[in-house]
Amino acid sequence: MKVGERHFRSIWPDEQDQKIIWIIDQRKLPFSFEFLALTSVTEVCAAISGMAVRGAPLIGVTAAWGIYLSLLEHRTSEEMLSYVHHDADMLKATRPTAVNLAWAVDFMMDRICEDPSPEAVRKAVVSLADSEVESCRRTGQNGLPLIEEASSRKGGAPVNILTHCNAGWLACVDYGTALAPVYLAHDRGIKVHVWVDETRPRNQGSRLTAWELSNHGVPCTLITDNAGGHLMQKGMVDMVIVGCDRATAGGDVANKIGTYLKALAAYDNNIPFYSAFPVSSIDLSMNYMDDIPVEERDADEVRIMEGIPADVKNEATADGQPTSVYICRNDTPVSNFGFDITPARLLTGLITDRGICRADRKSIIKMLS
Amino acid sequence: MKVGERHFRSIWPDEQDQKIIWIIDQRKLPFSFEFLALTSVTEVCAAISGMAVRGAPLIGVTAAWGIYLSLLEHRTSEEMLSYVHHDADMLKATRPTAVNLAWAVDFMMDRICEDPSPEAVRKAVVSLADSEVESCRRTGQNGLPLIEEASSRKGGAPVNILTHCNAGWLACVDYGTALAPVYLAHDRGIKVHVWVDETRPRNQGSRLTAWELSNHGVPCTLITDNAGGHLMQKGMVDMVIVGCDRATAGGDVANKIGTYLKALAAYDNNIPFYSAFPVSSIDLSMNYMDDIPVEERDADEVRIMEGIPADVKNEATADGQPTSVYICRNDTPVSNFGFDITPARLLTGLITDRGICRADRKSIIKMLS
Repeated sequence: MKVGERHFRSIWPDEQDQKIIWIIDQRKLPFSFEFLALTSVTEVCAAISGMAVRGAPLIGVTAAWGIYLSLLEHRTSEEMLSYVHHDADMLKATRPTAVNLAWAVDFMMDRICEDPSPEAVRKAVVSLADSEVESCRRTGQNGLPLIEEASSRKGGAPVNILTHCNAGWLACVDYGTALAPVYLAHDRGIKVHVWVDETRPRNQGSRLTAWELSNHGVPCTLITDNAGGHLMQKGMVDMVIVGCDRATAGGDVANKIGTYLKALAAYDNNIPFYSAFPVSSIDLSMNYMDDIPVEERDADEVRIMEGIPADVKNEATADGQPTSVYICRNDTPVSNFGFDITPARLLTGLITDRGICRADRKSIIKMLS
Repeated sequence: MKVGERHFRSIWPDEQDQKIIWIIDQRKLPFSFEFLALTSVTEVCAAISGMAVRGAPLIGVTAAWGIYLSLLEHRTSEEMLSYVHHDADMLKATRPTAVNLAWAVDFMMDRICEDPSPEAVRKAVVSLADSEVESCRRTGQNGLPLIEEASSRKGGAPVNILTHCNAGWLACVDYGTALAPVYLAHDRGIKVHVWVDETRPRNQGSRLTAWELSNHGVPCTLITDNAGGHLMQKGMVDMVIVGCDRATAGGDVANKIGTYLKALAAYDNNIPFYSAFPVSSIDLSMNYMDDIPVEERDADEVRIMEGIPADVKNEATADGQPTSVYICRNDTPVSNFGFDITPARLLTGLITDRGICRADRKSIIKMLS
């Protein structure tokens, strides 16, 4: 999507130099907008594990470029395949829980077995990235009528959409999942306004979602994670769209911690609540929400926050360098679960690249068949 | 309650010097534990408006000491009463929305009309403070059986209580409201553990509640505001107790923003949800939750956070000086409502200084009569 007047993806190959892959260094956002050149599989691993890139679809595509760079490094060696295999394992180990990562690496290894020429492998990555974009675009296209209907019900007044965390183009390659319908609606001239949950502890909402929406020109307002319920009670939210880390066969949705609370509030106030994702996020091996394991993360994510010194003016981007502060005593005991599970009964529907369906087993199976 | 081995109130008169009132400078917590001497009504006004003290009951008692200090300053003047009246208006203007503040100032002016001697006025403030403490103690006493029952149901295993914001002794003079039953239970040897909501944007949970519980020796764990729903789904919360800014005659409760979301999650998981407050917080003139006005606060409360530089060790208290950082771009549009309203239907009951009652008009009127 756009940053200023220029269109960006979250990852792209250099146009001249075949050995350079560019990413947006997401650790620096929203304070500065910087690109990072990845020129080796080691740099790719560091970018993934260091979270310069994040978001399952983007991690997958980044790892695929990692395999390509590994191939370039080792192609003159007789033991090329063994080296690339080793790098593939290294890539998979950077974020062991992300399903897309392992899938993309295995996909690339299969392509290399078919045709190990750099041209063929490069083409495979480009096609993988394009198919991710296409999947997001289709998700957006499928969700678009929901916003169009809300807009016409409101006589063209802005449709207020609440979102949690970042399920935008920065998490994917372009468009995003939850934000894809929002971008498509905005680009068609439908008035939309997004309530952006801050999303503690890592603040993907205030750091990434607010940044990417603003830069594309979509009106948005940052709120604390505590505020959404009140806005819904006051009729200030028309629909909620969130992403999804993993969905069960029954339509329960695991997503960033706090999603469940917003689903409860939407349900209590008769506000449509959707989760948007490619069907590859549906894990048919999981029948019940209790089957989904919930990751517990580091306490310092809650205790420490990063920002620009407030006595420094950071008008356009940032004059000051980001610094980290303990916002509570550094010995405060902390519990930090990374996501929660929203039961299917609270979801109005699922927006996917295959269409919209109700959040129940029968509808999901029908959509997938 | 205790800080280390010593018992503290949040405000107390100096034992030697009649002209000094001590407060805990709550702006410095949890990074350092400092006292501030108030020696004039001007200093009292600055302490209230600058939020060195906060919490409706504590603000009321602080203002009452302000009237006493005003009397000491002006008692030799012929126009003493007119000066004190002027100071009373100044005190009321520091935090115009806090009901207890105006009430306490008017109460003190009535006492001065009865007997303007410094001894009598001082005695009136001491008695006001003691009655605030007694009201909190009774609230605690009335809530205690709920924790005792949960403890015996669990065979003595720790009772997990979730709380939002700070409704502890720092907000009052001693004991607190929501935390009073917790302190009494702990002091009787009942095992309790408190889940402390961080409470964005001002973080009264991580800065005040976690600090005061830890210092009294009550086990507690800090969580983000997003986490409570997941903990409830997982059976890790036995009850929720929150404070109250204002309750309607029908039992709807206005409290810190985000309270409503926790009430929804408690209801969805069959977990008892209580609001604890003195009956003076019930506003019988308000019949419906929509009658309660909700304050919208400054955007920088969301954009800026204060903390200790994370590269500095702050083992015991803090070696570094607190600093403020913008945690998002400083031009991010923000909405910042200060509280929300939990409808009576989601409350299991109200814990007050007059007893426990159901959150409905009939039960409330019966309790008050």
